[in-house]
Amino acid sequence: MAIHLYNSLTRTKEEFRPLVEGQVGMYVCGPTVYGPPHLGHAKSYLTFDVLAKYLRQTGLKVRYVQNITDVGHLTDDADAGEDKIIKQARLDQVHPWEVVDRYMRLYFDDMTALRIAHPSFYVRASQHIGEQIEAVVALLKKGHAYEVDGNVYFDVGSFAGYGKLSGRVMDEQREAVRVEARSEKRHPRDFALWKRAEPGHILRWNSPWGPGYPGWHIECSVMSTKYLGETFDIHGGGLENMFPHHECEIAQSEAETGKPFARFWVHNNMVTVDGVKMGKSLGNFRTVRDLLQKHTPEAIRVFVLSTHYRSPTNYTEEAIGAAATGLGRLTQCYATLRDLETRGAPGEEPAIAGLCADTARALGEAMDNDLDTPGAIAQIYEFVTAVNRRLTTGPLPAAAAREAARLLHTWAGDLLGILAEPAAGEGNVDLAPIMDLVIELRKDLKAAKQFSLADKIRDRLKTAGIVLEDTRDGTRWRKA
Amino acid sequence: MAIHLYNSLTRTKEEFRPLVEGQVGMYVCGPTVYGPPHLGHAKSYLTFDVLAKYLRQTGLKVRYVQNITDVGHLTDDADAGEDKIIKQARLDQVHPWEVVDRYMRLYFDDMTALRIAHPSFYVRASQHIGEQIEAVVALLKKGHAYEVDGNVYFDVGSFAGYGKLSGRVMDEQREAVRVEARSEKRHPRDFALWKRAEPGHILRWNSPWGPGYPGWHIECSVMSTKYLGETFDIHGGGLENMFPHHECEIAQSEAETGKPFARFWVHNNMVTVDGVKMGKSLGNFRTVRDLLQKHTPEAIRVFVLSTHYRSPTNYTEEAIGAAATGLGRLTQCYATLRDLETRGAPGEEPAIAGLCADTARALGEAMDNDLDTPGAIAQIYEFVTAVNRRLTTGPLPAAAAREAARLLHTWAGDLLGILAEPAAGEGNVDLAPIMDLVIELRKDLKAAKQFSLADKIRDRLKTAGIVLEDTRDGTRWRKA
Repeated sequence: MAIHLYNSLTRTKEEFRPLVEGQVGMYVCGPTVYGPPHLGHAKSYLTFDVLAKYLRQTGLKVRYVQNITDVGHLTDDADAGEDKIIKQARLDQVHPWEVVDRYMRLYFDDMTALRIAHPSFYVRASQHIGEQIEAVVALLKKGHAYEVDGNVYFDVGSFAGYGKLSGRVMDEQREAVRVEARSEKRHPRDFALWKRAEPGHILRWNSPWGPGYPGWHIECSVMSTKYLGETFDIHGGGLENMFPHHECEIAQSEAETGKPFARFWVHNNMVTVDGVKMGKSLGNFRTVRDLLQKHTPEAIRVFVLSTHYRSPTNYTEEAIGAAATGLGRLTQCYATLRDLETRGAPGEEPAIAGLCADTARALGEAMDNDLDTPGAIAQIYEFVTAVNRRLTTGPLPAAAAREAARLLHTWAGDLLGILAEPAAGEGNVDLAPIMDLVIELRKDLKAAKQFSLADKIRDRLKTAGIVLEDTRDGTRWRKA
Repeated sequence: MAIHLYNSLTRTKEEFRPLVEGQVGMYVCGPTVYGPPHLGHAKSYLTFDVLAKYLRQTGLKVRYVQNITDVGHLTDDADAGEDKIIKQARLDQVHPWEVVDRYMRLYFDDMTALRIAHPSFYVRASQHIGEQIEAVVALLKKGHAYEVDGNVYFDVGSFAGYGKLSGRVMDEQREAVRVEARSEKRHPRDFALWKRAEPGHILRWNSPWGPGYPGWHIECSVMSTKYLGETFDIHGGGLENMFPHHECEIAQSEAETGKPFARFWVHNNMVTVDGVKMGKSLGNFRTVRDLLQKHTPEAIRVFVLSTHYRSPTNYTEEAIGAAATGLGRLTQCYATLRDLETRGAPGEEPAIAGLCADTARALGEAMDNDLDTPGAIAQIYEFVTAVNRRLTTGPLPAAAAREAARLLHTWAGDLLGILAEPAAGEGNVDLAPIMDLVIELRKDLKAAKQFSLADKIRDRLKTAGIVLEDTRDGTRWRKA
């Protein structure tokens, strides 16, 4: 079997074959870096992390490019409003690049913490101003764009394919687009390729149309084709960007090159919190940083991957807790297998070899089926149950244990990233329950009049850097 | 007193006053990101970290800009050789941006690990191609540059001030510069502003002179003045960049603007290893990552800051160990003072108040004297000795302890970054001595026939994720 992906462009699940044999070009819409990464980012970048890793696991070489939007993304989709980064910089009273740097580094760190591998490389919008200007010049030359007073707009009417991705046809759009303040557009659907910089607008560059800055959509057209070619394999992003962002990308790119743009469009669905759309303004925002305070990266990953990427993920505290409960069994089973790898008896166990082969096949089928990660996780849990059942009858031979451990390592560890490595677990034992036990023992010993033992506890803890404080509410401990 | 800095341009120690009252603009030559940060980087960025922090401590607002060189830095200073990043990308068989991303993130992480605050923002050469082209156009227009076959060179003879920073005069240069292969330069001193991209050269941009890429020097002229103004306060960098890099920056910038470029040039000296210049080719390279395996960030900082920034630092294993020995006394003294802050008696202690005032004054004098960090560290150690001597006679009053602790926090902690905060120790309690205690208690309880308590220990530890194993050699524990 081969990997099949749901292609938003054709609205069908299609077999994925790269344009150039053995090599995949993938572009994913990255963050606009004006605030901390949240669960919505985690879902999107986790989806494409698993996709890139799975493609590589099947032997393909993947060039995965992600953009960092550091200019031109306005607070309003209809070419009005303020640049999101400049707005944040004004609030923080710093240069816009300070906002960009702070949140870009936070994004890198949060992705690393979530065991999301970085793309092959990131590309910044501000790093490609010249190329964006060149693209606008080309679109003007071909009659797909027009300039009005330092602004350049894409003439949607000039591109027949507009709407083919999102399925939004002209009348719908006419109604959907709110009344335009800028009457200089020939048609409300038209969108900005280049915007005139008003006086005081900090992020500005010289252009044939005077000082200004690129529209948000053009950066992705320019950077994806620069690094992946005019036609490339996969364009990913959040469903909320399908219209207008991705629709505009297609229009710009195909109007300029006359060739098909991305072959597969892969869109991940959104995250809701307690059933309500997550949003900064709604105050129900869950940042990755917040989540990592309470949950392990593996728990967050298994929670996100337990919902298919094309379905909405509903975040509740209970749901993430429930998703994580299976992980303990998985980790425990893996640790046992690793232990048996060295301690187990010699010999074979055909039943385990068969179980491993069946499970690997089932896992491949799940992943090939449009990245069915919930199905893959179910397969892994079933495998753990079967191994545990077998272990009740006695230890496994070393070779069988090794094979079973390797299966978990490959699929649950490397691919899905839900397996905490024993090595990575160093120092992750929570001190609190152990200290609770020690304090309880000391109380028991006092009750049993074993005072010298009770005192020994206090003294030895002090040496270990822990101070006990007897209060009216009981004994508390703190690090010295 | 006011801060005095040695200005390489005037070859004297001068009082530093910012151009705009209360605000400092500082530009520091950042890394070319094609390899891991090493001790030479650590010395340079630590120097300017302390400078920026000290300027801020005195109440100045500092905009500190640092560049990331991701294009145009050739392996040979005389405009020959290969782009360092492209060369590394060829060796690694990846796109040059993969090299840039990998080492840029490593640089960010290593600087954070060394407690070096990030500059206000980083600027990348590839992010300012358009501005660099505009600068070259302006220099051509003013007659300071000439084009030959897609290459543009700065005409050194057209700028009278060339050599004023490094003191290298024309004849010396003529001899110093090796015989040029490119005869198209009018004079060997002339240097490239823009280079023609040969076929297959990946990092290329369109320009009025055809596809090419900027020379290394022009990025710093363009980016420093873009973000700090045509004349700005401080330009920092390693001494090895004074010639030709900084000399060329001055020539380009002042020829274009007709105004003075940086007012203060601050250069840090190099790092030698066992007395020999550190270099990749010499195999005596010490990466920051390597050093952090063996030493705490505070130990590395105190080692580097124990030599004045304008003197060469000689790295030996012994020297870094010796530099770190004083730190234990410092940390211990600080912990004692923090403890006394809450436990100490009420009342004042004028002698300690006097000691604090004298020490703060002496510290300020050391730092004002061209960042005399060795002098400042000596003052801190003397202060610790005096406090410890006083503590042999009994505890300090809380208020005195607070004042002394605050002094250390400000100067040794915030400014020099050589004080390990007790707060940073969270989670660093070693489990081993606590588990040793618990196992010993269990043995004691068994000996005392308190079997139910002994069993409770085993059961509760299991819940906490710790397994006890009774062996012939005693009881061992491991994380489950």
